[in-house]
Amino acid sequence: MPDELTMVSTFLEFLDLSGTFVFALSGALAGARYRLDIFGMLVLSFVAAVAGGIIRDVLIGATPPAAIDDWRYLAVSVAAGLITFRWYARINRLRSAVLTFDAIGLALFTVTGASKALSFDLDPAGAVLLGMLTGIGGGMLCDLLVSETPAVLRSELYAVAALAGASIVVLGDRLDITHSAALLTGAAVCFTLRILAIRRGWNLPAPRLE
Amino acid sequence: MPDELTMVSTFLEFLDLSGTFVFALSGALAGARYRLDIFGMLVLSFVAAVAGGIIRDVLIGATPPAAIDDWRYLAVSVAAGLITFRWYARINRLRSAVLTFDAIGLALFTVTGASKALSFDLDPAGAVLLGMLTGIGGGMLCDLLVSETPAVLRSELYAVAALAGASIVVLGDRLDITHSAALLTGAAVCFTLRILAIRRGWNLPAPRLE
Amino acid sequence: MPDELTMVSTFLEFLDLSGTFVFALSGALAGARYRLDIFGMLVLSFVAAVAGGIIRDVLIGATPPAAIDDWRYLAVSVAAGLITFRWYARINRLRSAVLTFDAIGLALFTVTGASKALSFDLDPAGAVLLGMLTGIGGGMLCDLLVSETPAVLRSELYAVAALAGASIVVLGDRLDITHSAALLTGAAVCFTLRILAIRRGWNLPAPRLE
Repeated sequence: MPDELTMVSTFLEFLDLSGTFVFALSGALAGARYRLDIFGMLVLSFVAAVAGGIIRDVLIGATPPAAIDDWRYLAVSVAAGLITFRWYARINRLRSAVLTFDAIGLALFTVTGASKALSFDLDPAGAVLLGMLTGIGGGMLCDLLVSETPAVLRSELYAVAALAGASIVVLGDRLDITHSAALLTGAAVCFTLRILAIRRGWNLPAPRLE
Repeated sequence: MPDELTMVSTFLEFLDLSGTFVFALSGALAGARYRLDIFGMLVLSFVAAVAGGIIRDVLIGATPPAAIDDWRYLAVSVAAGLITFRWYARINRLRSAVLTFDAIGLALFTVTGASKALSFDLDPAGAVLLGMLTGIGGGMLCDLLVSETPAVLRSELYAVAALAGASIVVLGDRLDITHSAALLTGAAVCFTLRILAIRRGWNLPAPRLE
Repeated sequence: MPDELTMVSTFLEFLDLSGTFVFALSGALAGARYRLDIFGMLVLSFVAAVAGGIIRDVLIGATPPAAIDDWRYLAVSVAAGLITFRWYARINRLRSAVLTFDAIGLALFTVTGASKALSFDLDPAGAVLLGMLTGIGGGMLCDLLVSETPAVLRSELYAVAALAGASIVVLGDRLDITHSAALLTGAAVCFTLRILAIRRGWNLPAPRLE
């Protein structure tokens, strides 16, 4: 019978690959909307799913990044891309479910990203930044690849949810709160903020230009 | 009289710098089409020629990347950019020759990229990815710099040719085939696929959106 | 009483953070012009201010980059972003002052970037490249984030000023000139070229396309 640590780590891995799958769906949907071919869709699936983590790993010097050195991330992303290619209309109709899963992915990636940055002894401010970047980086790079200004810079309370989640993880670390409690709280706050933002159409203010 | 190993390595280096030159020509032509100034053209020459390899090196932790730490890559790229600046109309008319050379560059960069990734003990799937990225990354970044969605995501059998070439190199490594035989086969397959794709207008399917 | 070395290093740090502030102002102004929300403005502030240095650090293997591992860079960038958010119209009217400060930032970042690359034993050509990239990289990435072709590729004598400054630092190193003299000369040349380019509207030639 597996001990508790193994079970927790298996569960975390399962969550991580689930987040990868859901982010990859979002990427593939974006690829289809921009009329990319199937290769382009697979690239966007992979980028949406893993680019945030890859950029984080490069910045902390953890090379090669796990997402490149572990075939399962590629396999999961490609599977999500192929499913979207084959059943685009159906997946696209599930968009509100995808948004919910995307919020789960955001929460998960953000807190694990902040946690990994802390384990590489980063400055607290840097760990918050990298946690947020792990969550939002893949989507931003996808937007750039289809020549769009990243949506996260312009509207929707997306990055702020990630910021809150990452801050809680880092704060928990400073206050010596159990790491798993901080991860759970951070993820819950990030997810809740994001869902509320979607439901209520929350946006950040833009500057007054005149 | 130089021994065989030195000759092979000199030959490989010659091929690598030739690939750099041809990719740099493509970059400079793109720069001119997008009305960049001479500095912009030189940047695009350099980016087209070396960005794929630089991204690969950063991802596997081989810093500083060879292309930055060896002045010959810069010199060759700048030479290609200046030639294109001076004789744009003439170079542009040679476009079908440039496409053929570009296919050679693609084949070469892809197999050497996969080979370098393997020598850094990457997972096979990761080595295939990085081989392909070495081949297509420079062109993609060029497209981004002129605010275009990378052509490789939208049309033409370009990335798939690189994918095939990189896969053969990695497969050869798993099957214990002589490394140089795998490199040659991979490069030949990549080049042939790419040339056939140009001649016959092969494209990948796009998803049906309705 | 602090010794001379401490005073010089404190002064350099002061200059570095001043450059960060001014570059961040430029980024935030760009963000406002492109109708980003406040989060987007803060991202552009941070990117404009530190992305050049981060890319340099990643390329030479100096991870984690100082700008991520030292909270003051983030704090200064965020402060510049918030000030621009609150007083956009006023800051925007100071644009010619901002351009002058931007030229100071360019000069400073370029020479410190080249100097850092040299201290990591880079090839002279590579050190010049990385010096220039430290100066112009942040602005280029900002332009990409708002889906623009980087201005530096298309017009204005901006990169060439950085190129001149970085070359002087590297040349000084080869000729065994005192490092601080080379830094000062490089920064002065870069600043002067940039200011003259602004005043006199100097541009680089573009290729003749017919």
